[in-house]
Amino acid sequence: MNYPSTIQKLIECFRKIPGIGEKTAERYALSVLNLDQEVVEQFSKSIIDTKLKIRKCKICNNLTEDNICDICKNENRNKKLLCVVEDPKNIILFEKIGTYDGCYHVINGLISPLDGINPEDIDIEKLLNRIKENDIKEVILAVKPSVEGETTSLYISRMLKDYDVVVSKIAHGVPLGADIDYVDSLTLELALENRKKIVSNN
Amino acid sequence: MNYPSTIQKLIECFRKIPGIGEKTAERYALSVLNLDQEVVEQFSKSIIDTKLKIRKCKICNNLTEDNICDICKNENRNKKLLCVVEDPKNIILFEKIGTYDGCYHVINGLISPLDGINPEDIDIEKLLNRIKENDIKEVILAVKPSVEGETTSLYISRMLKDYDVVVSKIAHGVPLGADIDYVDSLTLELALENRKKIVSNN
Repeated sequence: MNYPSTIQKLIECFRKIPGIGEKTAERYALSVLNLDQEVVEQFSKSIIDTKLKIRKCKICNNLTEDNICDICKNENRNKKLLCVVEDPKNIILFEKIGTYDGCYHVINGLISPLDGINPEDIDIEKLLNRIKENDIKEVILAVKPSVEGETTSLYISRMLKDYDVVVSKIAHGVPLGADIDYVDSLTLELALENRKKIVSNN
Repeated sequence: MNYPSTIQKLIECFRKIPGIGEKTAERYALSVLNLDQEVVEQFSKSIIDTKLKIRKCKICNNLTEDNICDICKNENRNKKLLCVVEDPKNIILFEKIGTYDGCYHVINGLISPLDGINPEDIDIEKLLNRIKENDIKEVILAVKPSVEGETTSLYISRMLKDYDVVVSKIAHGVPLGADIDYVDSLTLELALENRKKIVSNN
């Protein structure tokens, strides 16, 4: 005895999403029964639409329904300034700031020799070519501050050392609103190292 | 700037499922991009199928694709024995035991006067009528051992006190494999109260 096969199939579909286990998939599938008919229709349509219509921007790898994403299309953005992120999700976060007017480049993951992920696997070539061909003035590296992130940043900056481009990295330190008690010591070390003078009398 | 509208719509659909927040919905929606085409098609179809095809069994309220569920249809099940549960999910758990051969009845929630949920809201009438009309011999109450569960159990047993039916309640106690250190004192109290003699020399 199990759920009717229709529900069973839906449970299996939910389980295909990373991070959803058996119990959670079951709960989600049963929740669908309580959704309004129109929501369910929209849900069914959106899933297939997302898979069919969403592609990577030919220039920056951002998610888009066209060949070129809205940011790359936008004539008001500074085309000489690139922020390198590891996931299209991160673009949304930077856009929420509201003041960054440059463009982006999404790399396809991070270099991780231990996992067998080399520069060619994350298509760094596309980024380097874009920088060289478009006369980019500054590249801001905004990847995770992990071993893989640092390796990737280092690799990119080395590959660019002979080009007329500034390579910078976003600042690491104590986040605003955070209780200093809860900040790890590596972050604190960076915060101390990169301290900023606010009064300079000497 | 936000995600392309197709993804945005999918995020909103995921958010309609209870327990899925903004970040999780975003993660799930983006995961859909990495699923195989056929999985996505199945997913889209299963969602709509589940909503359209699944209904409540006319007899016991279990989920089914027909008018009557497989358990109620099964001639080999003991039709005089009913296990009362509060959610169709629980039926699956009891079926996993493999030895229970009675039938079930799903009530539509639990009585909770504080939340304004009265016996008529959870259609206890249907259960009582079923018991009376089908000459049920035993009703096993298997609802949550909470205040609401106890209230519901008490209500059902009171309503049945003049009928020729045994009303029982599943046992509460220390679960097998559990470390006794981690069992709450109320459970332990019940376990002690309902102790079973294993040697009886007097």
